[in-house]
Formats: sequence, C-alpha cells, structure tokens
Amino acid sequence: MDVRAAVAVEAGKPLEIMNVQLEGPKAGEVLIEVKATGLCHTDDFTLSGADPEGIFPAILGHEGAGVVVDVGPGVTSVKKGDHVIPLYTPECRECPSCLSRKTNLCTAIRSTQGQGLMPDGTSRFSLDGKPLYHYMGCSTFANFTVLPEIAVAKINPDAPFDKVCYIGCGVTTGVGAVINTAQVEIGATAIVFGLGGIGLNVIQGLRLAGADMIIGVDLNNDKKEWGERFGMTHFVNPKEVGEDIVPYLINLTKRGNDTIGGADYTFDCTGNTTVMRQALESAHRGWGKSVVIGVAGAGQEISTRPFQLVTGRTWMGTAFGGARGRTDVPKIVDWYMDGKIDIDPMITHLLKLEDINKGFDMMHSGESIRSVVVY
Amino acid sequence: MDVRAAVAVEAGKPLEIMNVQLEGPKAGEVLIEVKATGLCHTDDFTLSGADPEGIFPAILGHEGAGVVVDVGPGVTSVKKGDHVIPLYTPECRECPSCLSRKTNLCTAIRSTQGQGLMPDGTSRFSLDGKPLYHYMGCSTFANFTVLPEIAVAKINPDAPFDKVCYIGCGVTTGVGAVINTAQVEIGATAIVFGLGGIGLNVIQGLRLAGADMIIGVDLNNDKKEWGERFGMTHFVNPKEVGEDIVPYLINLTKRGNDTIGGADYTFDCTGNTTVMRQALESAHRGWGKSVVIGVAGAGQEISTRPFQLVTGRTWMGTAFGGARGRTDVPKIVDWYMDGKIDIDPMITHLLKLEDINKGFDMMHSGESIRSVVVY
Repeated sequence: MDVRAAVAVEAGKPLEIMNVQLEGPKAGEVLIEVKATGLCHTDDFTLSGADPEGIFPAILGHEGAGVVVDVGPGVTSVKKGDHVIPLYTPECRECPSCLSRKTNLCTAIRSTQGQGLMPDGTSRFSLDGKPLYHYMGCSTFANFTVLPEIAVAKINPDAPFDKVCYIGCGVTTGVGAVINTAQVEIGATAIVFGLGGIGLNVIQGLRLAGADMIIGVDLNNDKKEWGERFGMTHFVNPKEVGEDIVPYLINLTKRGNDTIGGADYTFDCTGNTTVMRQALESAHRGWGKSVVIGVAGAGQEISTRPFQLVTGRTWMGTAFGGARGRTDVPKIVDWYMDGKIDIDPMITHLLKLEDINKGFDMMHSGESIRSVVVY
Repeated sequence: MDVRAAVAVEAGKPLEIMNVQLEGPKAGEVLIEVKATGLCHTDDFTLSGADPEGIFPAILGHEGAGVVVDVGPGVTSVKKGDHVIPLYTPECRECPSCLSRKTNLCTAIRSTQGQGLMPDGTSRFSLDGKPLYHYMGCSTFANFTVLPEIAVAKINPDAPFDKVCYIGCGVTTGVGAVINTAQVEIGATAIVFGLGGIGLNVIQGLRLAGADMIIGVDLNNDKKEWGERFGMTHFVNPKEVGEDIVPYLINLTKRGNDTIGGADYTFDCTGNTTVMRQALESAHRGWGKSVVIGVAGAGQEISTRPFQLVTGRTWMGTAFGGARGRTDVPKIVDWYMDGKIDIDPMITHLLKLEDINKGFDMMHSGESIRSVVVY
C-alpha cells in the first residue's frame, strides 16, 4: 500500500515528505494506522548524523499512537480496531530478560531492530522498489506502519492520540525513571537536572511518588514556571548560584538534623556527562541514588572518584523508564485519563506531517516542549 | 598508663615500637586491652604517605579484638570483661544516617575521627607529653586503646581473638559486600576481581549466599587454589585469556538460553580504577550490579560510557561491607563460631608486636593473606 511518510533520506538533511510503499503484516505482525507522533530528541540525534548506529534511508519516529487496521497470521493479543502505542522496547514475556523480572530490556528482537529491520530480517517499507529502514522498531513518521505484535501496547480507546502518543517515549521515560528505576518513596528529596520534556516528566513522577522536595536545575530561568506547573518545589539556575553547583545543592538538601545533605534521588535529563557527574555527587552520602536518563554523545564518558560510590552513592541508568511496554504503558495511559499525570500542557505544538521539519526547528530553538504531528 | 605500641612517627618510615602514654576512658568511652590485630592494606596505605588524610604521629591499626578493662561514666552497653571488636565505622543508632535504615555510615563522630581525635576533640595517646593521634577511631597497634562506647561490638567470649580480629575489617568488608550491599540471591552468577584477603572473603560470602557461579579473576595463578578453598568455581587469569577480559567474562557467564551474558554481580577488590571499569562492564545488561570495594589511590577516577548504566547496570560501592558494627559484627562472629564462614586458613602469619614491620613486608611481597599481631 501507499503511505505518506517523512523520510530521512540521509544524515544531516531535512526529512522529505513523500509517498512510500508499505507491505502488509507478516506472521506475528500488525499494521497500525498512526494517528499522532511526537518529535523526540532521539529522532533528531539520529537525523543529525551524530548517532553512530543511525541507518539511512529510514522512516524515523518512535513516539506514536494509533489503531490496529490489520493483523498477520498468529496474532492473538490485539485485533483490528484496538488502540495501541508502538513500543521501541518490546515485551515478549519469553526471553531471559523478560523472564528475569529484573529488567524491561526485552531482547527478543534486539538484533534485527538495531539493523532497522523486522524480526524476519526484512523491511516492510520501500521506495521505488528499494528498501527503507525501520527505526527503533516503530517508524511512526508515516501514517501507517508495521510492528511486531510484541511491540504494541493496547490502551484505553478513549485516550486522545495527540496526547498519549507522548507516553510512547517521553512521559514513560520520565515517570518510569522515578517509579520503576529509582523507586522513590514518599517524603524523599530529589534533584532533576535539565527541565526539558523528560525533566518535566521526572518532576511529575516525583510528585506522583510523594517526594517532599523536588529541585529543578536548569540554565534557563523560563523553565522555573514550567517546573512548578508539574510539582517542582525549588528552582536552581547554576549560573546564578555564585559557587559550585554540587556543594550548593548539598547544602540546599539539608533537612532537620541532617547536617550532611545531598538528595535521596537525583536524575540527569541533559545528556551532558559533566552534569551526570554533578548529579551523582549531589546525591546523599550513604544512600543517594543517581539515575542517568539523558543520552550522551558518541564516545563521551562519565567519571567520578570511586570514593563517591564507596561512601554509599549508587549510579544507575534507565531506558524507557524501566517500563515493560505492554504491561506498564496501558497503566500510564489510565493514569493520564484519571488525571494522575498531566500531558496536555507539555504538548506545545500540533503539526501536520508536511510541517515536521518546523517541529525540529522549534526543538532546536527551545520554543517547544513537545511537538506532535497529527495525521 | 604506659602501653606498648607501634608508633607511626612519620609517613614512609617503619613503625617504631615503644612505650607511650594512654589516658583512661572519659564519659562514654571504654578502655580495651587489645589481644590481637590484623595488618590491613589501609594501614599500609596511610603509613606509606599516599593517604592524603593521613595524620602523624599516630597509632595505626583498625582490625582488632580485645577485652573491656575499664569504662567511663555513662557507659551502659558494655562492661569490664566483655569481649569486643573495635569499630572504625561506629553505630550510634541516633544520627540521621543510623536512623535512615539505609546506610551503615554512622556520622555521630565522623569529624573528630577524621582528625585523629576522640569525640571530645582530644587524644588519649601521648608521648613525652605530646599528643599522638588516633587512627580510624581504633588504634589497635597498641596493647591498650580507648574507644567510644558506640565504636565497640560485644562478641561471643568464646571466640579466639587471633582469628575474629579479622572480622574487624576484612571479613566483614568482603562478606558484607555480598550480603548487605549487593544482596546476592541464591543461584546468582558473580565475578570477583582480585583474590587478596578481601576477594577471598567476597568469595566465601558468595558461597554463603548460594551463588551458582563464582568466578575469581587474578593475575597470579597461585590464587586459584586459594579461591577454590573458599568456594570459587572458576578461575580466570587475564594474562592468559588471549583477548580482552570483559568479552571473555561476558561469554563465560552465558547460561542456559541467555545469549547476552555478564554476571549478576561483580566485585572490585583491587583498588585499580581500570579493573573497576572492567568489573562494571562485565555485569549483566539489564540488571548487573557492580560493587567497588577496593580503595583507589588519591585523585584517581573511574569512568565508563553512560550507555553501560542506561542499559541497566548499577555501579555502587561499599564501606565496611555495609555492616552496622554493633548489630552485624557479633552475628558474623557467631557465623564463624558456627562454621558458616572460614577464617583460620586466611590468617597466614601470627607475629609479635616487635615484628609488625615484617608483617608489612610480607604484605608487600604477597607472601601473606593476613598477618595478625598477637599481644
């Protein structure tokens, strides 16, 4: 079938809007009509050419929501008409990782997904007879896409596509980092570095988890109002504190008779390896956990003195917020529908597919929190 | 009173055996007759001058066992005649850290201990009227010492001093890293880097915890027999594997239908920051935990790609094996008395105080696992 897509023809070039060919679903696969897709920094990272694993030409996009319009042989968990969110982290429930109960990083289709292919080693997308690669197993920058059954989460059909598509990546990553990875408890103190879309979702995850003190750190004072909207209790601009940010934050987090200071939990949402170190070292001696969420540039490394770990800090990371896609994503959609989490204010721009490159421009300028393409 | 001590007169010089003066216990303090003390790499590190926090002249030693011979006013938890192990990590049960239930790093007397002083800001040791500094709050290289009540663990009086003194540091650090810090479960896979005294105690901690696969890594093939004696199931000499050690270990730890590999738990017992990185990167994708136990040289840093954390590895550290001194040390003594853990074979040399410098020489040459001074 002919579908409308924004094609990443080559690295560093704008997306090109065109009709491409999509094959129907094979065994274990489903055809999705994509209704909306967010534009994420990871798409931008790959499109820029900075992603060493980027493959071109490809259909990018991994933060979508849509409707099942066809299923291949053997598909049992979803049917035509189901509303779904595509999952770049699938959940097969059969691989050693899924069965470990200790990680969400399902490995069932990892190798083919990394190669831009479906599990059978081929692509469903093509242009003039030549294959176009899939991206993160999702390729939501097209109004139809094909995914493995294990890579779609069936969600509440009342949920609005142009909002809950954001649960396909950013919301789940931020909220999940708090709930699944850090496992923040009521009354905790926390510091969030970087108040972009992920940071704001970490903040609302902390609010949901009942944290007492939610400190947001950003170089842009405009982010103060954004943070407060989602539960931030304190804002710190490192440019304005007049000293090193780490001792400042350690001092800020002293409470009651605790003269040591440091946050119970810290989160890096910047991708900057210097900030990742600051986040670790702002965690409380003895028990502070620091979670890396941001994606660093190729080849960049984090470092610290081992003394930071020996004195009780834990350095960890999260991918897709530690969420199991088919199990946890539908719950987060329900939380949104129940008003437990907000999404609407973060969706700052709705775009047509034809304007998708404008969406990336607004991402670069900082004008948008999240731009969403509505098909 | 006059006591016999090995005095660290200045950095880089051998200890000097001499009589020094010891004041009796003040309020909240106890006088201990030290019966035995181990020689630990940390004493050697400080004596060498490499420890930036080393203070001289001092009475070193922090791995002892002895008998309470006098108590100061207000002491209630121990009495004359009690057998005790001095604790360089005290347990006050009242500070924010103790009350957090999340760390063993009691902070009640941290600042004075770091200055080589008792909690009232003075020293009990002196020579010719000039103060000698305490060390790690213990100073067990003297046949009598004074400690705060919160820094002694009352133990089974049947336990032999020349064995259980090792529980004052090495045994608890290694076994505790497994049980308290990593919280290893039955059936786990584990890799231990460095088969010195700490590494061997990690190995027996893993055996106690029921780990399936206990891999020891050391550059010295003589350590194979040592490791096996305490429960090691596989030995790897990095010089002999003919490839990078990390992929080798990841391959070695593939089990059943797990084609990813990596150990559930890894432990650095070397203090070498390159090995610390190898330990992290040998941990299993998705859930592997890596624990830093070794103490690195001043100014040295650990580093890795943040991708290692984002894909589910956790980097953590441990001090005194995460053990609460007054609560957990007596239990470990009981485990020894019940035969759950071994200590006797690790105590390779018993020395008189006069021969303490020979003990450090044997540490440097690798001839000893643990040398113990018996008073």
